[in-house]
Order: sequence, then structure tokens, then C-alpha cells
Amino acid sequence: MRQYLLPALLAITVPVCAQQQENDSLAMRHLATEILTHSKAYENLRELTQQVGGRLAGSPQMVKAEKWGARVLKDAGADTVYMQECQVPHWVRGAKEEVRIISRRRDFIPPLNVLALGNSVGSAPSGITAPVIEVASFEDLEAKKDQVKGKIVFYNYAFNPAYIHTFESYGDAVKYRGQGASRAAKYGALAVVVRSMTHGANNLPHTGALSYDESAPKIPAVAIGLEDAERLSNRLKSDVDMKLYFRTNCKMLPDTTGHNVIGEIRGTEHPEQIITVGGHLDSWDVNEGAHDDGTGCVQSVEILRAFKALGIKPKNTIRIVLFANEENGARGGKKYAAEAKAKGEQHIFALESDAGGFTPRGFSLMMPDAKRAKIQSWAPLFLPYDVYDFSGVGGGVDVGQLYEAIGTPMGELLPDSQRYFDLHHAANDTFEAVNKRELELGAFSMAGLIYLIDKYGL
Amino acid sequence: MRQYLLPALLAITVPVCAQQQENDSLAMRHLATEILTHSKAYENLRELTQQVGGRLAGSPQMVKAEKWGARVLKDAGADTVYMQECQVPHWVRGAKEEVRIISRRRDFIPPLNVLALGNSVGSAPSGITAPVIEVASFEDLEAKKDQVKGKIVFYNYAFNPAYIHTFESYGDAVKYRGQGASRAAKYGALAVVVRSMTHGANNLPHTGALSYDESAPKIPAVAIGLEDAERLSNRLKSDVDMKLYFRTNCKMLPDTTGHNVIGEIRGTEHPEQIITVGGHLDSWDVNEGAHDDGTGCVQSVEILRAFKALGIKPKNTIRIVLFANEENGARGGKKYAAEAKAKGEQHIFALESDAGGFTPRGFSLMMPDAKRAKIQSWAPLFLPYDVYDFSGVGGGVDVGQLYEAIGTPMGELLPDSQRYFDLHHAANDTFEAVNKRELELGAFSMAGLIYLIDKYGL
Repeated sequence: MRQYLLPALLAITVPVCAQQQENDSLAMRHLATEILTHSKAYENLRELTQQVGGRLAGSPQMVKAEKWGARVLKDAGADTVYMQECQVPHWVRGAKEEVRIISRRRDFIPPLNVLALGNSVGSAPSGITAPVIEVASFEDLEAKKDQVKGKIVFYNYAFNPAYIHTFESYGDAVKYRGQGASRAAKYGALAVVVRSMTHGANNLPHTGALSYDESAPKIPAVAIGLEDAERLSNRLKSDVDMKLYFRTNCKMLPDTTGHNVIGEIRGTEHPEQIITVGGHLDSWDVNEGAHDDGTGCVQSVEILRAFKALGIKPKNTIRIVLFANEENGARGGKKYAAEAKAKGEQHIFALESDAGGFTPRGFSLMMPDAKRAKIQSWAPLFLPYDVYDFSGVGGGVDVGQLYEAIGTPMGELLPDSQRYFDLHHAANDTFEAVNKRELELGAFSMAGLIYLIDKYGL
Repeated sequence: MRQYLLPALLAITVPVCAQQQENDSLAMRHLATEILTHSKAYENLRELTQQVGGRLAGSPQMVKAEKWGARVLKDAGADTVYMQECQVPHWVRGAKEEVRIISRRRDFIPPLNVLALGNSVGSAPSGITAPVIEVASFEDLEAKKDQVKGKIVFYNYAFNPAYIHTFESYGDAVKYRGQGASRAAKYGALAVVVRSMTHGANNLPHTGALSYDESAPKIPAVAIGLEDAERLSNRLKSDVDMKLYFRTNCKMLPDTTGHNVIGEIRGTEHPEQIITVGGHLDSWDVNEGAHDDGTGCVQSVEILRAFKALGIKPKNTIRIVLFANEENGARGGKKYAAEAKAKGEQHIFALESDAGGFTPRGFSLMMPDAKRAKIQSWAPLFLPYDVYDFSGVGGGVDVGQLYEAIGTPMGELLPDSQRYFDLHHAANDTFEAVNKRELELGAFSMAGLIYLIDKYGL
């Protein structure tokens, strides 16, 4: 236990006039106290994760989730709640995947722990039985391209632990999930097995979307847990005649209808100017979609609730958007952006939370330098809340569509990233993995940023 | 999921010459990579928590823990490993505590979930049966002092969620655990029940030490879980005749022998100048002592291992100390400081990790302004690792003894505090609650600070 600890960070200097600084500090303190003492975010998340559960676009759970979203937005005090219809992909996993080592040896070999990758085709109903070729990278695949035909390619590229920010490790490794199937199919592979994108110490496979290159045959793909990836790799070294039996039952059905769920507080001075805040309501089907992205949804709703509770009447329209489909198509964000463009809406800022509900550290921002500098000038107001990093360049997938369509300045909550890839797209992304205070501090950080942008413009 | 994210925090300015900056940046990067890819901290922690387990000073488990400590220090490459004998308190919990509501009503009432407070006396072997008086605070106790005699006092002071740093909530509430028994005994109370110091959403009681004021009778004390605190409080409102049956079986035995476990790398230029780094090896008996303070121990040992692995030969002597008794007496730190003073040792800095093995944010420091400024000038070297806060004033309980005895400048690792009081001194402080990367990033931060202090002095 610690001793001698005095409240830190008391003396801060703010490059604005003293009275304004004091008012803003006070407003931030009120927001923090309101959210840390009366937040509904955690209980809302409990409902979404435990009563609705996993909710892939097009699934019956997603219909339940939309109803949940409309209700919590209304309960939080939105002036208007509505659904924005969009077409979404409709991928279904079907019966449990099965990948087994087939060997002439008589030792008992438990099945490998795998999950079909999102958007992938299924194998033939009777499965595929074929030899395996392990590759360490795409370079390695190219070097071995003549040996690939008729085989199952096993991408065994490790998540790099030396990066400090885990999203860099992910950015480095995710190409094997996204492009691995088509790259292998080009050389005649029958299926692919991809090492999961995680540091995780357990054996859970981590799913996620792939995308097929139309120039190559569509072959089935699974993610494999880390322990089983090691087991498979080791086996291949000694049991040279081994094969894999590979069966997946997933398929892509025709597009279906989904909805962005939207709630607004109408602006008192410039109702035509819109500030968007959101997360995505869809999740993978194999977990509760807690950190990805239930937390982003309930944090966004919480901003609205806290504003109402404190009597904050924003000058601009604050629009909370629970996006319909991020995971395997980003169709929710695309629809939202297309509508905004078609209607000629004025969007002054768009904020997303889709990097986990962990303790916040800052915001990544994507906008012209002068606007970034304006937000950075508010950094001292965030420092007492341990939110200090406004240096990153980025935004989220969903608000990124708005940025691309009409150039809206955007940002994303930057939570601590160390735990995220332990559970990202895996069965352990559940309510229990979310800490109530960390979730709330993220919601507060977002509320504070929206409060300041609404007050001072951008 | 996030998109558009570019590596943040690349452009930093360091107020030292360019070459020196580059060398130090490189040294930090080597330390980080070494620890994130080859650390033994997590596996060492697994052994300590799961093979040794809870280890209160004076317990048989503590003897096992000392042997573990000597071994891991040797394995990490210490030149010298030795034990420093000290006298430690020997408090034993005895058979499981029991506190029950006794009512004339015929409803079924499950027992309350309690833990005896460390250092407390036990009740009479047959237990105590007495009415209960609830107080909200010491002020409330004073107001009700005439109603206390012959009763059990129930301190129901809530952990304040509005503080951002949870150690402030703890500092605010812990006086009821520390002084509550004696303050109530002064007015004739027979025992006390203290609401646990936690935000936690579960019903686990959180133990911890009390200290008796010699001017009042010693009465027994327990901590109660939050749900049961609410249950008891609600019951008291309607069931005015209810009593508590209260039995604890703990006792303080005569002092016994413990040891600080010490491992050194001898300095190449100034072996007589010592830099101390440590955590406490003891823990409460009710959990695995993972975050409190197994993590501090294994992080300290990891510094030594990483220095050896990278061929870093410190100029000063680096002394890793696994302290014998922090939880209920701080006797380990006191002995270490007394020896240092008696021998006239030169201690240039002392660092502790005892605030949990969570993702690091900075260091609290206790030292003259010029020395603090020197450490703060290195902040840009830590920023790429998300370590930014050098503003806090503080140190740990164990190195605090050295500060008090001979004025050694001291510091403590400052991890994110949001999850700590969910498990502090409760049954859920187990290995599973520690994240490997967060633990390692803390060890790296400590290694970096020690590297720079050794290189540039303080």
C-alpha cells in the first residue's frame, strides 16, 4: 500500500482567461462527478451483453439490440429517437467448426480450437482433408508458392510483443486474417488456418472479418488459438505425413436490412450543426461484444444522459449513433455518411469509441492542424482526470466514413490498449471483463470533449 | 476497431544534447524490448501466488516465500543474495469468522460475509451477542456516543466514487478501519463492523490492519462486504430489536523472526553508493497477494534480470529488497532503514512498487525540488511508453522508512489505480487478475528510471 501520496496534478496552467478556465474546470468536475456517481453506462452494458448477447449484423439478436438502443436513448433523455435503415451483410456461422489433425500415429489428438473467419465461405459439407503447409509470412508464402497447391495453408505469424501500443501489433499482423485466404488461393490452396491476433496466454481463437480478392477462388478460413497454433506447428515438424480435416459451415446470405439507431438533443442555437458521437451496436457472434463495442455504445448514450441530468443545453445538435454494422462491412457508417452527404448536413465533429472500455488516456484526432491545436489547448482541463494524450492521428471506422465522405473532423477515444487483444473477437469479451470506473471515466472524457467543442466550436 | 491510427508521440523534444538523447532513447527501447519479450516476471508471479499463496508475516507460507525470493534473485543474476533478519508481528486469523443477524422474525438470514481485521483481538470463544448501532462517520459516532455502550458499532462510511484517483478514496475512508475499533471502545462498544474500502460491485470483505490506541480497551473488529453492509443497514431500519452474533478467532502471538530477502548487483564505480528497489513479500492470508504485492516483488527482480541480460553494468550498487512485513507492521522497512543508518550506508535513491501491477502512468517522488526536476527532465524518454506523470508527491511504506531514517530520496511506481480497490486485501487478489503486459510495462518503467539515475546520479 502507498503512503505519503498527496493529490497530484493540482497546479495546472490553462492558456485561456482565468474566469473561463475556472468555469470550464468546474463544468468538467460536474460532468465527472455526475458520471462517476450516477452513470447508467454499466447497467446498460449489463443488459446489452447479458440479455441481448452477441449480435452480428442480420442476426435476430441484432433486432433485439436495436430495440434496446432505442429504449436506452429515450430513457437517457433524447429529444428524438429514430432508426436509419441500411442494407447489411448477412453472414452466418452455422454449426460449430471442426479442424482435426489426421495422423497415421495412434496417439490421441484433441481437435484444434478454431473459429471460422467472418465473411468466409464454408468448406464442402463433408469437409476437406489435405496436407498442411506452414508459412511464417507472405514473403514465406511467395517463397513456397510452388508447394501450396492442394494444401491447407497455416499462417503462423506471431503478434509482436515489442510494440508498446497493441494496435500497432494488430496493424502489423491483421493482414494475414484479412488477405491470407485470397493470397493462398491464388496458388491453389484449399483452405487457410490463421494464428489469432493476440498476446493472449490462453487458447481462445479470435475471429474477425476477411475480405476476398475477386481474382482468386474463395476458400474457407479459420482462426486458431495460440496454444493450438504451437501444437500444430510442432506436430508438422515431426509428423510429416499428417493432414488436417477441415470443416466449416458458414455462409454469406443475401444482404438484409439493419438500422443505425439514432438519438438527438436538438441544439438551442445552431440545431443545423451536428456533432456525432457513437459506437457500433453489432458485434461478433461468439461473445457478448462487451469491449467491442458495447462499451462504446453505452458511453455515447451516457453523454446524453449526463448532459440532461446537469441541465446542459448544447448549442449544436448532439447526435448519438449506434452504428448497424462495423465488424464485417462498415455498412452502418457508410449509410450514415451517405445520408449526411445527400442531405447536405453540416457536421462539425464526429467522435467514436471503439477501442475498448478501458481506462482512458486521451483521444486520437484527424483534422486540420488549427482544429487539432484548439483541442490540444484544452488538454490541461483533462489532465486532472489522467487524460493527457491528444497526439495520435486517427478516428474510428464508422465516423471515418463521414470523414471520407464530407471531411468532417473526427476523433476516437484512446483507452489503455494493453488488455484489448486478450479478448478482441474472442469468447472472453464479456461483461465481466469491463471495469465500471474505467468505462465511466471513458464516458466522462468523451462528454468533456463534446462539451468543449459544443461551447467553443471547432 | 480502430482505423487510421498512426504511431503517436513520435515527435518529442528532450532538453539534453542530441547524441545523449539518442543513446538514452535507445537504451530505453532495449530495456522495453527485453522485458516485453523475455521477462520472467509473470512466471515468477505465478509461482509466488499459486505455489506459495497468501503469506502473512510469521506464517509458514512466508518461510516458503523467502526461499522463493532467494532463488529468483539468484536466477536473475544477483552477485550476492542474503537474508536480513528482523522481528515481525505474528497475527493469526484462526478458524473462520462468523457474524450473524439474530432476529425474533422467522425469516431465513444468511450469515454476513466478513473478515477479521489484521492485528485485531478475537472475540470471547463463545462469541458476542449484542445490539448494533450504525454510524456514518466519526462525527456521527461522537453525536451518538451515549448510545454506544454494550453495543457493536457498524461503521458504514462509503468509499467515495467521485475521486479520480482511488487512493484518495482510500485515504478518505481507511481511518474507520485503522482507528474505528479504539474510537468505539472508548465509549464502551464491544466490537466493530467496518464497511470495506472498495468501489467493488461484489460482496467480498476487504481486510487490512487496524491499530489499537493503548488508552482504550482492545475490542474485536471485522470488515464486511458491500452488499452485506447494505443488507445490515436496511435491516437495522426496520428490525429494531435485532442483534448480531459476532465471533472471531484471531489473536496476536509474540513477535517472531522474519527476513528481508536481498539481492545485489555490485556497482562498478561506486559500489558504496546504493540504489534500493523493492516490494513487500508478505501479503494478507485471504488471497494470493498478487497485486499486493507479488507484482512489486517480481517487477523489482525483473530489473536485475534485464540489466544482466542486456549487459548493463551499473556504476552504483543496485539492491533489490523483498521486504519482510509491510501489511501489519512495516517491520521489514524499519529494519532495513535502521541497518542502513547504523552502518552509515550511502543511499542515493529508493524505489518501491506497491500500488498494484496495473498499466503504469508515472512515478510519485519525494525528494528536494532540484532532484525532482532532474527526474522530470527525463520525462520525454518515458512518454513513448505512455509513462507521463512525474508530478505526484509520495513513496511507499517500506522505502518511506529509509526516507524517514536517513532522508533518502524516494519514489513509487504509479500504476493506473482504477481496478486496485476492487481486489485490495480481498479474496480476488489472485494471479488471474494480473495482466502480463501491464506487469511488464511497470517493470520496464522502473528499470528505465533506475538506469537513468544510475547513469546520471540524482
